[in-house]
Amino acid sequence: MQLKGNLLVAQGGGPTAVINQSMVGVVLEARKYAQVERIYGAVHGVEGIVNEEFIDLTKETAENLEAVAATPSSALLSTRVKPTPEFCQNMFEVMREHNIRFFFYIGGNDSSDTVRIVNEEAEKHNYDFRAIHIPKTVDNDLVINDHTPGFGSAARYVASAFAGINYDNRALSGVYIGVIMGRHAGFLTGASALGRVYESDGPHLVYFPERAFSIDKFLDDVKDVYDKYGRCIIAVSEGIQDADGTPIVSKLQEVVEKDAHGNVQLSGTGALGDLLADEIKLKLGIKRVRADTLGYMQRSFLGCVSDVDQLEAREAAVRGVQYALLEDMDGSVVIERKGNYAVDYRLVELSEVAAKTKHMPDEFINEAGNNVTDAFIAYAKPLIGSGFNSGARLRAPKVEKILNR
Amino acid sequence: MQLKGNLLVAQGGGPTAVINQSMVGVVLEARKYAQVERIYGAVHGVEGIVNEEFIDLTKETAENLEAVAATPSSALLSTRVKPTPEFCQNMFEVMREHNIRFFFYIGGNDSSDTVRIVNEEAEKHNYDFRAIHIPKTVDNDLVINDHTPGFGSAARYVASAFAGINYDNRALSGVYIGVIMGRHAGFLTGASALGRVYESDGPHLVYFPERAFSIDKFLDDVKDVYDKYGRCIIAVSEGIQDADGTPIVSKLQEVVEKDAHGNVQLSGTGALGDLLADEIKLKLGIKRVRADTLGYMQRSFLGCVSDVDQLEAREAAVRGVQYALLEDMDGSVVIERKGNYAVDYRLVELSEVAAKTKHMPDEFINEAGNNVTDAFIAYAKPLIGSGFNSGARLRAPKVEKILNR
Repeated sequence: MQLKGNLLVAQGGGPTAVINQSMVGVVLEARKYAQVERIYGAVHGVEGIVNEEFIDLTKETAENLEAVAATPSSALLSTRVKPTPEFCQNMFEVMREHNIRFFFYIGGNDSSDTVRIVNEEAEKHNYDFRAIHIPKTVDNDLVINDHTPGFGSAARYVASAFAGINYDNRALSGVYIGVIMGRHAGFLTGASALGRVYESDGPHLVYFPERAFSIDKFLDDVKDVYDKYGRCIIAVSEGIQDADGTPIVSKLQEVVEKDAHGNVQLSGTGALGDLLADEIKLKLGIKRVRADTLGYMQRSFLGCVSDVDQLEAREAAVRGVQYALLEDMDGSVVIERKGNYAVDYRLVELSEVAAKTKHMPDEFINEAGNNVTDAFIAYAKPLIGSGFNSGARLRAPKVEKILNR
Repeated sequence: MQLKGNLLVAQGGGPTAVINQSMVGVVLEARKYAQVERIYGAVHGVEGIVNEEFIDLTKETAENLEAVAATPSSALLSTRVKPTPEFCQNMFEVMREHNIRFFFYIGGNDSSDTVRIVNEEAEKHNYDFRAIHIPKTVDNDLVINDHTPGFGSAARYVASAFAGINYDNRALSGVYIGVIMGRHAGFLTGASALGRVYESDGPHLVYFPERAFSIDKFLDDVKDVYDKYGRCIIAVSEGIQDADGTPIVSKLQEVVEKDAHGNVQLSGTGALGDLLADEIKLKLGIKRVRADTLGYMQRSFLGCVSDVDQLEAREAAVRGVQYALLEDMDGSVVIERKGNYAVDYRLVELSEVAAKTKHMPDEFINEAGNNVTDAFIAYAKPLIGSGFNSGARLRAPKVEKILNR
């Protein structure tokens, strides 16, 4: 007998620009199957599940669902709660009570582990249940996946920001530091280079969590670039750390004896950028040094989205529903790259993705550890989607001087 | 006899997303007039003029000029130099030597004063000369103008950022502070409200340089909003100051004894946002408090541009050329609003715009001094251009609880 009952979809962790594409992909695809009775959405992820806070997405119009799909951030709202095994048991009990037979959780590697535990709980109780993890993360740090939904749009934002900053910094020279999200993986930081056209275009220096960061080496790098171009644009991952694994933000804060209250918070503060800027001003004596922390706009800016990312976020979810409903499978949907550029999807064991972190491979980082390689550009460029235009410089020749003062 | 000779165009001050539209507007319009021999561009604004650093824009293709027009920031590069009367004399000498008879300077209120002084110099020497100031500023603080080219695109960026942040902050609740450019005028800060749809949408609080800022009042405001919605989004102008005119960033820095090196730098640092966040954490005991400083993306982000702003930046320049070439006039081009929504242009005396700052009128700020009014929304909404879509929420009804734990 075919499995029949209600379907539950939830969203976890940090929002992305396309996480609603995945949610809407689940809902609209699930409407096609007679064995799906009601389609519920959990409010605030796993918190909503244990609290039975569901909304009945069966009663949404396809029109509004499409409008929501085009809206950044998690329309079902999100949570940072990492479920314990006991929490997962509670989740399972609620789902059984509501006759949830199909569970779709859109999230990062912690989320796939949650799906795995809930699924094991169902097996223990001989409760017939299909559970699918659908990937998302702006950090692009899920293993097996060639890349993950959410990254392409965030990368497009970062690329657009630095392409603009490059023109700004040419117009009014100085040193510019942009601090980018990514605690453990430097993919998003690397995306800062995707808008470069000319050899002299910034970012001229790019620093990743994957390479030990040395302040002295950093200052030498900045001096070299500044001497050459009279300006310097730097992209820095918020997660940079020294050879011992100490985050640079906390290290520098000790040096200058700043703020005794804070824990090492990376996002939502300008501390790292300001501290690096201070170092450059003090040690290199450069006057115009500016630091921006790109902040939450990276994952939620309205209207900066990769069409490739949108499509894949939708498809990954649709394929997830097909695996569960047509093939009776549990697992995590992963994206595979085919050719240049197409993708396909497959389902892997939940444990294969759970609680693991993918890092920038060596071939994506230059030997000096201060820039991306052409291989990274080739990898990431298709992901930011169509219609990305780096703009143009004037090419008119100089006029001969007359006064020559 | 008709005035005949070379034309010079330059760009000054902070770049905008559409300042190249104005530059290209001058160049392409000027090509239609037989009395214009060569069209020069000064590199790095007034600095390029005294140093005779010109490029020959006569030798640019219209195709590349259009590509440059669509590119953010000043393609002729810019400067922060404020010319002294002596500096202006030097500028005039260079221009006379190069037979510059038509001078177009795209910039803010300081730039209009520079144009005025150079023009007076020309008159003193009986040198036949037409000088036009073309307005630009993301701050929207030029007098007489209904608004200024550059503002609409920056406002679109700020509105898009806060519309996205609103969804992000709904998904993962807390307090969010966004610090916005504008040392003396709060127009750009007010633009943070342009993406609001529902009554509960953020920003819930907006603070302007035009109103004295009190930390205690601020904390009360935040507490009220947080108690009501369980979250709070705040838009703050970088230029907020207390009743005595002391910038809040320097005031708070004294209190917490931070960083003894810095002068009161407003942009390119996360200090103000971080300091306000610390106050909220310490005094209100709210845990999740995040601050972003929107930074240089506000004026240079690639691909976030208002089509209305683009058109007007181009037209203001074209009209400027027509005033000088067809009507033998000097002056500053200003934008007038007609109906809802159209514009027209007129030329005013250079001295009328020079070195004056426009502020948010009282009718644009609510009585409590912590939000914009509907009048501001009506004023600013047309300026951010077409295709601005705030996105959508889910509207599905709640599912009845079964366990009710």
